[in-house]
Amino acid sequence: MLTFDPICAIATPPGAAGLAIIRLSGDSCFTIADTCFRGKTSIEEARSHTILYGAFWSGGQAIDQVTAFVYRAPHSYTGEDVVEFGCHGGTIVAHEVVQALIEAGARHAEPGEFTKRAFLNRKLDLTQAEAVGDIIHAVSTQGSHTAARQLMGGFTRRLAELREKLLELCGLLELELDFSQEDIELIDKTVLARRIHEAREYCLELASAHRSSEILRSGFSVGIVGYPNAGKSSLLNALLGKNRAIVSEIAGTTRDYIEETLQIGSMAVRIIDTAGFRASSDVIEVAGIQLAETLLEECHLILVLNDSAEGWEHSNPLVNSLRGKFLEARVECVQTKIDLLENTPEASKDAIFEGLHLSVKEERGIKELKHFIEREAQRAVQTVSDALINARQASLLTQAASSLAKAREAVQAGASNEFAAIDLREALKRIGEITGEVWNEEILNSVFAKFCIGK
Amino acid sequence: MLTFDPICAIATPPGAAGLAIIRLSGDSCFTIADTCFRGKTSIEEARSHTILYGAFWSGGQAIDQVTAFVYRAPHSYTGEDVVEFGCHGGTIVAHEVVQALIEAGARHAEPGEFTKRAFLNRKLDLTQAEAVGDIIHAVSTQGSHTAARQLMGGFTRRLAELREKLLELCGLLELELDFSQEDIELIDKTVLARRIHEAREYCLELASAHRSSEILRSGFSVGIVGYPNAGKSSLLNALLGKNRAIVSEIAGTTRDYIEETLQIGSMAVRIIDTAGFRASSDVIEVAGIQLAETLLEECHLILVLNDSAEGWEHSNPLVNSLRGKFLEARVECVQTKIDLLENTPEASKDAIFEGLHLSVKEERGIKELKHFIEREAQRAVQTVSDALINARQASLLTQAASSLAKAREAVQAGASNEFAAIDLREALKRIGEITGEVWNEEILNSVFAKFCIGK
Repeated sequence: MLTFDPICAIATPPGAAGLAIIRLSGDSCFTIADTCFRGKTSIEEARSHTILYGAFWSGGQAIDQVTAFVYRAPHSYTGEDVVEFGCHGGTIVAHEVVQALIEAGARHAEPGEFTKRAFLNRKLDLTQAEAVGDIIHAVSTQGSHTAARQLMGGFTRRLAELREKLLELCGLLELELDFSQEDIELIDKTVLARRIHEAREYCLELASAHRSSEILRSGFSVGIVGYPNAGKSSLLNALLGKNRAIVSEIAGTTRDYIEETLQIGSMAVRIIDTAGFRASSDVIEVAGIQLAETLLEECHLILVLNDSAEGWEHSNPLVNSLRGKFLEARVECVQTKIDLLENTPEASKDAIFEGLHLSVKEERGIKELKHFIEREAQRAVQTVSDALINARQASLLTQAASSLAKAREAVQAGASNEFAAIDLREALKRIGEITGEVWNEEILNSVFAKFCIGK
Repeated sequence: MLTFDPICAIATPPGAAGLAIIRLSGDSCFTIADTCFRGKTSIEEARSHTILYGAFWSGGQAIDQVTAFVYRAPHSYTGEDVVEFGCHGGTIVAHEVVQALIEAGARHAEPGEFTKRAFLNRKLDLTQAEAVGDIIHAVSTQGSHTAARQLMGGFTRRLAELREKLLELCGLLELELDFSQEDIELIDKTVLARRIHEAREYCLELASAHRSSEILRSGFSVGIVGYPNAGKSSLLNALLGKNRAIVSEIAGTTRDYIEETLQIGSMAVRIIDTAGFRASSDVIEVAGIQLAETLLEECHLILVLNDSAEGWEHSNPLVNSLRGKFLEARVECVQTKIDLLENTPEASKDAIFEGLHLSVKEERGIKELKHFIEREAQRAVQTVSDALINARQASLLTQAASSLAKAREAVQAGASNEFAAIDLREALKRIGEITGEVWNEEILNSVFAKFCIGK
């Protein structure tokens, strides 16, 4: 195990609560901890994975009663000697503990530095480190669970299998190269090309899971649009209702839209209420068009609310225009205020009731709409279930795929084995960068800079 | 040790961070924990004060990698069997862990319920429990340190000594009563009266520490007043400057004043900027007079800013009026804008420089003003140093003091010993209520209702 200079930080969120945890890791951290801790046993003498109880001293006085959690290298989160102090929560004490540890010789940890050390000590690979960040920032249970599977090595295993297959192919190619004088063919070139192709397809499949991963990470985005008085506000309130668990209102410079996140099933759904669509004959006028379009571009589902009392085809120009503009999203019309449909001819009614329809006033159709949204959200994430592919990983997978494409072309063109072998090695390097088998400071910084301090 | 039904709650503040801790305590909590935890060792088999590492399962899947901290009764915070789970911080996982434990048989803990159990199991007395709350909500290091001394038994020991003295006097009185036929005097009545008087004085001294305790608990309040353009805003900014550590702006219905808390030395100082004082001849007009007066009533120090360029006695009517109105506070005049004093006669200048004076523009006098505030704050809290006397304790101490006064009167009047003994017993009962030696549900509820959940 590598051991670095001692670092410390508060590992729990700020605020008044029963407990705060301060983490200390690195070289001589037991000595540092003992200068502040007075208990029956010293931390230096304590066995690994034991809990001591005592007073935490700073500036000649006991500032709190604390528990000290002792982990001896390599059996700790970072792989180094680690002490965690549990003190009473609140603004003051936890900061004093950190300050005292710094005075005793530790320095304040940088964002993600504990996890970075865990990586350097091979306690986890980069995909697992990234999963830690995804669990902490998860907005849905499904996103959190997927990240947990990744943390427990789901993605690591997939990549290890892929790597093994490519290494085997590489090995065969290079072995053949050794016997090139004798013209021995160790592997059928058609089989070789097929296996490289399969590996490439697998890389692309994983890379394409990036989109659904983002949905798990940030939520499934539903845009609500419609002409004025289509019932947007009341639908928004009905959807949020008692489910207003996680609510965030974007307080931007323009207050032209509202975004709220709610849990539907195991998914986080971001409802984006855009204002400003106005009908003028068959042309669609969009007030603040740029903002609205930017918002809708992020949406996976766009619901166009149509006031059914105005005629059930009243919003069709808007629906068609949006379908033409946002090809990636599903655009659906929702008939609102169906309680007002008394005088509508039966034929029209049938058409209305075929699609999505609701009455907020009579509480009809809300549950059905939620089911529809949940079904759409689930469909959008039905790909990889044990990894949250992020942009970094997707980009590396795509790069690996193009190297594999080149390798296959070389094989099919009957070129010398060494060309294909170079491309395969290139692909292996990219895959190694995903897990961190191949790394440099730049790669690590890009991964850990996003972490919070204390992790 | 008493054991109650199993309860659980998140013990760390909400928010995204490295760690969250979920506490589980009570009957069969190891069995409950084991239904969710999968590690090398089961929690049931683990020794006390050890740390296990494993996966936390819920709904048929592993939702996170966790550490389990195992404490066996009576060696735990509550005195019961306790398991604390450390999981990754964030909104989702910690709540899922609590949910899973509830499904496995625990119930959600009420505010302060863990500490209440600690009290019922005699792990700490009520003054120590109250100290826990004070540490968590401390706004200054000095307040936090005083609460820590109370947690470690400072106040408990004081009360135990007092109790012992009163018990001794009680014993003598009651012994004499047994020999009343023989007319034996075991204790000199003058000595007895003096000792009761001393005890009473001690109770009142402790009770009077309530005011300084409140300063340690909530901060030393400084009101800044002055006629318009006296330089209040710029002074406020200069005071807060880089010390803007803990900043809170009261977002009330009236935004007529600003309150900010800053640390000066080891004290928390609340700076209250009241608007609305206007000079009109020698009468003081107070705009929104009721609000301003309510605010200033809370203040321990009132600084009247006087624009020295307007004449150094310009604000005297305001100073005098405030001194007449707020007798508890110290009211001081501060000469501002002293950089503009060029044309002032020397005699006036001398008078100005005798008192508090400053120039925000030239950064003169700010440090001195801070020292002055700190000195005043320290003077206000120079009483009891190992207890934060709260309203409940002060009230009980005052009640005990009046019982002791009655006891002394009875002794001095030469009444039968039994009267003084009854009063002494009454005083002992009140002191017992402070520590919780005497308690009922009502007392406990009043103490623990103020706690946060998870403590």
